[in-house]
Amino acid sequence: MKSPIPDYLKQVLEQVRPNDDGAPADYIETLANADTSKLAVALAMVDGQVYSSGDDSVEFSIQSISKAFVYAIAIEDAGLDAVLAKIGVEPSGDAFNKLSLERGSNRPMNPMINAGAITAHSLVVAPNATAEQRTERILDVLSRLAGRQLSVDEEVYEAELRDADRNMGIGYMLKAAGIIKCDPREAVKGYIRQCAINVNVRDLAMMSATLCNAGVHPLTNESIIPQASVRQVLSVMTTCGMYDAAGAWVSRIGIPAKSGVAGGIIGALPGQVGLATFSPRLDARGNSVRGVAICERLSSDMGLHMMDVSQISMATVRTSVATIVSPGGQDAHNENCNRQVVIFSMRGVVRFSGSERLTRAMVRELHYDPEDPGSGRSHDACAVVLSLREVYMLSPVAKRVIHEDIFRLVSEERLVVAIDPGDVLQIDREKAGSGLRIVHTDEEARNEIGGVGCQAVAHSHEW
Amino acid sequence: MKSPIPDYLKQVLEQVRPNDDGAPADYIETLANADTSKLAVALAMVDGQVYSSGDDSVEFSIQSISKAFVYAIAIEDAGLDAVLAKIGVEPSGDAFNKLSLERGSNRPMNPMINAGAITAHSLVVAPNATAEQRTERILDVLSRLAGRQLSVDEEVYEAELRDADRNMGIGYMLKAAGIIKCDPREAVKGYIRQCAINVNVRDLAMMSATLCNAGVHPLTNESIIPQASVRQVLSVMTTCGMYDAAGAWVSRIGIPAKSGVAGGIIGALPGQVGLATFSPRLDARGNSVRGVAICERLSSDMGLHMMDVSQISMATVRTSVATIVSPGGQDAHNENCNRQVVIFSMRGVVRFSGSERLTRAMVRELHYDPEDPGSGRSHDACAVVLSLREVYMLSPVAKRVIHEDIFRLVSEERLVVAIDPGDVLQIDREKAGSGLRIVHTDEEARNEIGGVGCQAVAHSHEW
Amino acid sequence: MKSPIPDYLKQVLEQVRPNDDGAPADYIETLANADTSKLAVALAMVDGQVYSSGDDSVEFSIQSISKAFVYAIAIEDAGLDAVLAKIGVEPSGDAFNKLSLERGSNRPMNPMINAGAITAHSLVVAPNATAEQRTERILDVLSRLAGRQLSVDEEVYEAELRDADRNMGIGYMLKAAGIIKCDPREAVKGYIRQCAINVNVRDLAMMSATLCNAGVHPLTNESIIPQASVRQVLSVMTTCGMYDAAGAWVSRIGIPAKSGVAGGIIGALPGQVGLATFSPRLDARGNSVRGVAICERLSSDMGLHMMDVSQISMATVRTSVATIVSPGGQDAHNENCNRQVVIFSMRGVVRFSGSERLTRAMVRELHYDPEDPGSGRSHDACAVVLSLREVYMLSPVAKRVIHEDIFRLVSEERLVVAIDPGDVLQIDREKAGSGLRIVHTDEEARNEIGGVGCQAVAHSHEW
Amino acid sequence: MKSPIPDYLKQVLEQVRPNDDGAPADYIETLANADTSKLAVALAMVDGQVYSSGDDSVEFSIQSISKAFVYAIAIEDAGLDAVLAKIGVEPSGDAFNKLSLERGSNRPMNPMINAGAITAHSLVVAPNATAEQRTERILDVLSRLAGRQLSVDEEVYEAELRDADRNMGIGYMLKAAGIIKCDPREAVKGYIRQCAINVNVRDLAMMSATLCNAGVHPLTNESIIPQASVRQVLSVMTTCGMYDAAGAWVSRIGIPAKSGVAGGIIGALPGQVGLATFSPRLDARGNSVRGVAICERLSSDMGLHMMDVSQISMATVRTSVATIVSPGGQDAHNENCNRQVVIFSMRGVVRFSGSERLTRAMVRELHYDPEDPGSGRSHDACAVVLSLREVYMLSPVAKRVIHEDIFRLVSEERLVVAIDPGDVLQIDREKAGSGLRIVHTDEEARNEIGGVGCQAVAHSHEW
Repeated sequence: MKSPIPDYLKQVLEQVRPNDDGAPADYIETLANADTSKLAVALAMVDGQVYSSGDDSVEFSIQSISKAFVYAIAIEDAGLDAVLAKIGVEPSGDAFNKLSLERGSNRPMNPMINAGAITAHSLVVAPNATAEQRTERILDVLSRLAGRQLSVDEEVYEAELRDADRNMGIGYMLKAAGIIKCDPREAVKGYIRQCAINVNVRDLAMMSATLCNAGVHPLTNESIIPQASVRQVLSVMTTCGMYDAAGAWVSRIGIPAKSGVAGGIIGALPGQVGLATFSPRLDARGNSVRGVAICERLSSDMGLHMMDVSQISMATVRTSVATIVSPGGQDAHNENCNRQVVIFSMRGVVRFSGSERLTRAMVRELHYDPEDPGSGRSHDACAVVLSLREVYMLSPVAKRVIHEDIFRLVSEERLVVAIDPGDVLQIDREKAGSGLRIVHTDEEARNEIGGVGCQAVAHSHEW
Repeated sequence: MKSPIPDYLKQVLEQVRPNDDGAPADYIETLANADTSKLAVALAMVDGQVYSSGDDSVEFSIQSISKAFVYAIAIEDAGLDAVLAKIGVEPSGDAFNKLSLERGSNRPMNPMINAGAITAHSLVVAPNATAEQRTERILDVLSRLAGRQLSVDEEVYEAELRDADRNMGIGYMLKAAGIIKCDPREAVKGYIRQCAINVNVRDLAMMSATLCNAGVHPLTNESIIPQASVRQVLSVMTTCGMYDAAGAWVSRIGIPAKSGVAGGIIGALPGQVGLATFSPRLDARGNSVRGVAICERLSSDMGLHMMDVSQISMATVRTSVATIVSPGGQDAHNENCNRQVVIFSMRGVVRFSGSERLTRAMVRELHYDPEDPGSGRSHDACAVVLSLREVYMLSPVAKRVIHEDIFRLVSEERLVVAIDPGDVLQIDREKAGSGLRIVHTDEEARNEIGGVGCQAVAHSHEW
Repeated sequence: MKSPIPDYLKQVLEQVRPNDDGAPADYIETLANADTSKLAVALAMVDGQVYSSGDDSVEFSIQSISKAFVYAIAIEDAGLDAVLAKIGVEPSGDAFNKLSLERGSNRPMNPMINAGAITAHSLVVAPNATAEQRTERILDVLSRLAGRQLSVDEEVYEAELRDADRNMGIGYMLKAAGIIKCDPREAVKGYIRQCAINVNVRDLAMMSATLCNAGVHPLTNESIIPQASVRQVLSVMTTCGMYDAAGAWVSRIGIPAKSGVAGGIIGALPGQVGLATFSPRLDARGNSVRGVAICERLSSDMGLHMMDVSQISMATVRTSVATIVSPGGQDAHNENCNRQVVIFSMRGVVRFSGSERLTRAMVRELHYDPEDPGSGRSHDACAVVLSLREVYMLSPVAKRVIHEDIFRLVSEERLVVAIDPGDVLQIDREKAGSGLRIVHTDEEARNEIGGVGCQAVAHSHEW
Repeated sequence: MKSPIPDYLKQVLEQVRPNDDGAPADYIETLANADTSKLAVALAMVDGQVYSSGDDSVEFSIQSISKAFVYAIAIEDAGLDAVLAKIGVEPSGDAFNKLSLERGSNRPMNPMINAGAITAHSLVVAPNATAEQRTERILDVLSRLAGRQLSVDEEVYEAELRDADRNMGIGYMLKAAGIIKCDPREAVKGYIRQCAINVNVRDLAMMSATLCNAGVHPLTNESIIPQASVRQVLSVMTTCGMYDAAGAWVSRIGIPAKSGVAGGIIGALPGQVGLATFSPRLDARGNSVRGVAICERLSSDMGLHMMDVSQISMATVRTSVATIVSPGGQDAHNENCNRQVVIFSMRGVVRFSGSERLTRAMVRELHYDPEDPGSGRSHDACAVVLSLREVYMLSPVAKRVIHEDIFRLVSEERLVVAIDPGDVLQIDREKAGSGLRIVHTDEEARNEIGGVGCQAVAHSHEW
């Protein structure tokens, strides 16, 4: 059996191939002469699996796609506050090569227009760094993201440098506005060099998948971009990535994205998939015509829209109640409670909504409300088992909620046994005290409950 | 045991309460005289559970929050294409009461500014509808979303009507630009009436939770807003909901939201939670000061940012291989295959990435690549069991991928048994042919495999 | 002999007639159906002589040309300060029907765009005046300017009222911004009525000539618009009259002007000539195509550009010196002075530069500087004659300078005799004292000098 | 007797001196350290007389005032069409250092903002000229305008060059937009050098007076700027000279003007007076606070507003009729005419309105209309005398009209005698034929009429 996914990608390419609208970027010869027949797409899963189709090994210059990653580097090197003081996060509504400085602050509107990108470049390493140091730093990070050593296309670099008047103008304007501190020519040269780094769609898909994977490279497991930076980068890609049509992009396609004038586009769906396309013909906004068509198609076919509401958090909590069949009551944890043990099992990724459901289930079983005949059916249960065996991840807020649940149960003098082989709970055990036992297996949990013949419990398949 | 969530909400309220920046909307007396000490928050889960704290039964006029819902109604009544022809989806960068028509098309920039909202109102019911008909329609939908009969605050309506010059101006401008077709005074009156509908934070949270729940009311299960409209509404809330700072809102808070000048804000995190806040003091942009602070706090505490990458799709596929212990081989499905049955179990919400992982697991077990020593360990397995028992939802693309997987397995003459009690697979059984069996329980699956004493399989806890 | 001027105008019409670019205003039917073959031009001199050619008796609605005159009426009725507080004077760079309110003040940018014109209309008579009162007032003033009773074209009025959505929108916006105080519908109706007043090119030329003639009607001599208002109106026509190309109009044509969508244009060259043209086809900006061509032609042919520097103020002062031949010195005014009398004659319009030249001539003759051998040739002259007989006008500053000259001469104990039959000098005779004599004729001046046989003086033809 | 004009200027200075609002330009140290107590004003008459008061010999850098003159040089060196293709003439509404390029054409909005001025600089001499060549050319022209050798303040030049980032940015932007063709750094350096030329108020007043005098230096009589360029420069100063308040400047002050950040302002009233002021403290727009106050005061006191309608062209034509007393009729020019000769005298500057009045006078005397009892009183006069002895200038259109009048009179077989000692008429004598006689004196005119005893004529003092 062969995977249908490569076949699907091939089919998508053939569907968009007949569209020969647009033209390659004409402002520098090297790009203008691009082979417009080239067409490629790649998907990288957050565990590192890459699918690709078409001209997936053809290299092209990364151009503006670099802006997203260099913004992340600037945040790391200068700190988020310093970066926000210099570069805004608002869509400009202007073309990418407009100056678009904010009134008052003089900040470039966002890091995805040239002015913002040159500023971000100038914040890499240190204000007084040389263009070489900055290029080296950027090339290193981009290579680690791609998972292979990348290099600068010197021919593209030289050609763009010869036609750099507008960017030089932007550079001097930024200097005059107090936004960049170094020699504007150095910043612009370094920026042009960053744009001339060569990549193919598989590189880009992997770089994007790293964003989707919270900044951790799916294959090397290296944490390349801190999670907070990833969130910032993806947010800015959402509102400013595709130039002057933020709203249309979000509503139609709904994938944080960034395009480059050499014909590349990346898209990143957090937690799911990084994608990349390549086709040199651009529309009037400077986005690859076929690339946009592929993104639209993938978003629609694959339900990748970020506002797709099909992924509704459904019940991930199962509750069961068992009666502890023990010879005597003396080994019960608490004499005041009955022989019941209530078992709660969770699974998957548990975020706020999951922890809320757990809490609700606990309240319903354990909190007795005289007004509500259905409440507190097991309110005098002496023990609670919380199975986290199948939980992959607890979000911080879920953790906080569940910790609080446990503290409250313990304070009610119930025995709480958490089955947590993956150590996701990370609770303050000292604070919880002896009422909380943390074990690795169902077996150990049963032992904690009392070592007694606990058939009722055994019948519950949740643990 | 009591739930800690109300306590948390209470604590959040106390944290923001000391902030008395801002002032209530001063343009009409009724709002200017609002009791600025009022403060409330509510969360509604997608299964209908509502938590609230503070002045959660205090009613206030919905104001601009209605824009999000009336946009959805307009899409339903006039069709998305007609709505897009009249109202853009781009952030305007202008204040809410600016005209902000797009050059060329004359469309209001988006449905969240007054010009767009008045246009959306005019598209409700039909172009020649009366203001009464439109108000009735809107009040009906909003009441169904809230889960109780809402009503118009006549005092607020009258007060706003007396001070409606700017909106009247916008209405006439829209008429002149060919955007609205009805009498502009009727459209504006209707719009003002829609804004004067009274709600409390619990109503708003439930309305928002309906958006989060794909348009289906969590309690009544009525499908009030079609899923495609929900996506459109949430997209526009993302980029245009909080007026002239789309980028800052997305990067800092990351929750599609909408505010109203009476002091309400709603936030909607698809698939998870709807939230609502109320505090009358507004900042310079017209957003409730404390409301924004609560949203920021909830986003940060609860990991609700839409670009939060902590929710990474992890392994949801489990694979096990069993040997069929049968007296004879004669009842095997296919003589050429061995006695192995490979069992794949999935759980939770399965979207593209889940189906990709299933496919990958299938390929690895069943596709033999002579070059890859690790491949196709069970390539001659005669049967495949696919357990969907714990799958809550299959996204369309996941469905397509898994259908294709099954067709390919069947074409290889393997017996495929799908355990699908929830009927999530929805495959074309005719196309799949007799090689596919769909059953409800593990027991039935075992029977399909051969009725044989299949202990090895029994040991697999996946099914 | 017949005047060549009508022939010239006829020739200009024939030169522009073949140009059939543009189209009549299409937004209301009455204008759209205009007879586009009509073509007319008129010139009105500041003494009331009118030349015209073409369809000079065809009536058309005055439209936006009324804005210039109603601005003047608003200044009179509300005061210049109140008008400036409500309406700016800056070119908007926008089309005439844009709202174009200034940031901060909310004032319409200028009185020539619709927003400013509606505001000006609302300031006519009084804030609480009825539309009828305002229309009556405007019709009265425009009729006096035209020199005949004008009337409203009710068909045009009704048609424009039916299509008044944009202006209604503007009216409500102005009300909302606090710029107009009355019911916006009344203001807009009145404004539309003002625009529907019928005129022909001879009317318009005469109205314009009144502006050129300092607000005094050339034929009736009625002072209809105060001089300060005229200056304000002409200034605003200069920078804002021809919509969104102020700079090109000033540099190419250089005549303060105003156009209307029915095809009329007026031009006003202060102190010289008022002109008017009519041709219904408009360019993209809303200015009559042939009308603009006529204006350009007249400006170029006739040297009417306001920055034309050919009119250089040249010597208007003549100086002569006579010796008083008297039997004895006893009747001389001042014993210390010699027998010389210095005669200064001026002519024409005397503004600052003329008074400066007089002063300079006086200083040279009468102020002795030992260092300068050419100075003070007559520094001990006992009498000065200043002939103003041929002076038509003394500007205020010229008056001030000449008064000061006279005070200084008198303080040097010289006899000053001013020949001023037209009473242009208007000096404070008390302050000047007995050293100043003001007479009407040369003869009287001779008598004042001494009644002596003053042949030398007689030979001077300057007086 | 001393002239009151210096006293007046001194008084104006004292009136504005207490105003210490504003601050010197702070962007470069040399300007920031200016002595803010300095204050000066100068007036230059179009005949070269200069009045000044205050610190009239203090030198300061010309800065942006140079823009007006370099625009004129660019027009001379590159041609008006080429200049208009590169630089617009519209007020920008933006601050002087904004880029303000026109949509579409990319032209800087006008030559008074930095972008336009740098472009104008780049058009001086030739596109491939060196910065030295351009500076030399500009320094030469400005020195001739000032009437003395000017020089560059090297300290100011160096300081501004160190802080030239914004202008460098503008230069590169202009290069990128295809507006300037040379190395942007050379253009900016040259521009900064042009701005660093030192002047005092007397220099500036004389430079401005040259503009007022049609480009001819009042003292040297050298024609430095062609008249068409002068018109263009003054037009642009009118609409764009005082930065972002064109309309307010025109309506309040009404003098074409230009200011510089070192504190200088020039004003130019065509045909009348050039003025200059100096005071280093600037308002928020970059105009000298006291300088603006002086301009406002001079405009108001001296009636210098360009829309001042006090200078109305009044009768400059005098008509008289004489009977030729001759022994016999045989020497009359035309036997059909009577013995009358009609004498028309004109004086001063004769523009269109003057020629129109002459024509009207001629028609009234000489054209007989049976319907009009007052017409053609001398319609059968045999001779016409036209005295131009006191005419200083005939505008082109006046010339055309009067030529046509003469041709018509001659064609009616009347003898026309023009007294034109200054040769202002410049008529085609061949076309006029023998019916026209041109003489220099009244005496010669009398002889031409017939040598007869023509007492009645002698009594007319008009000739």
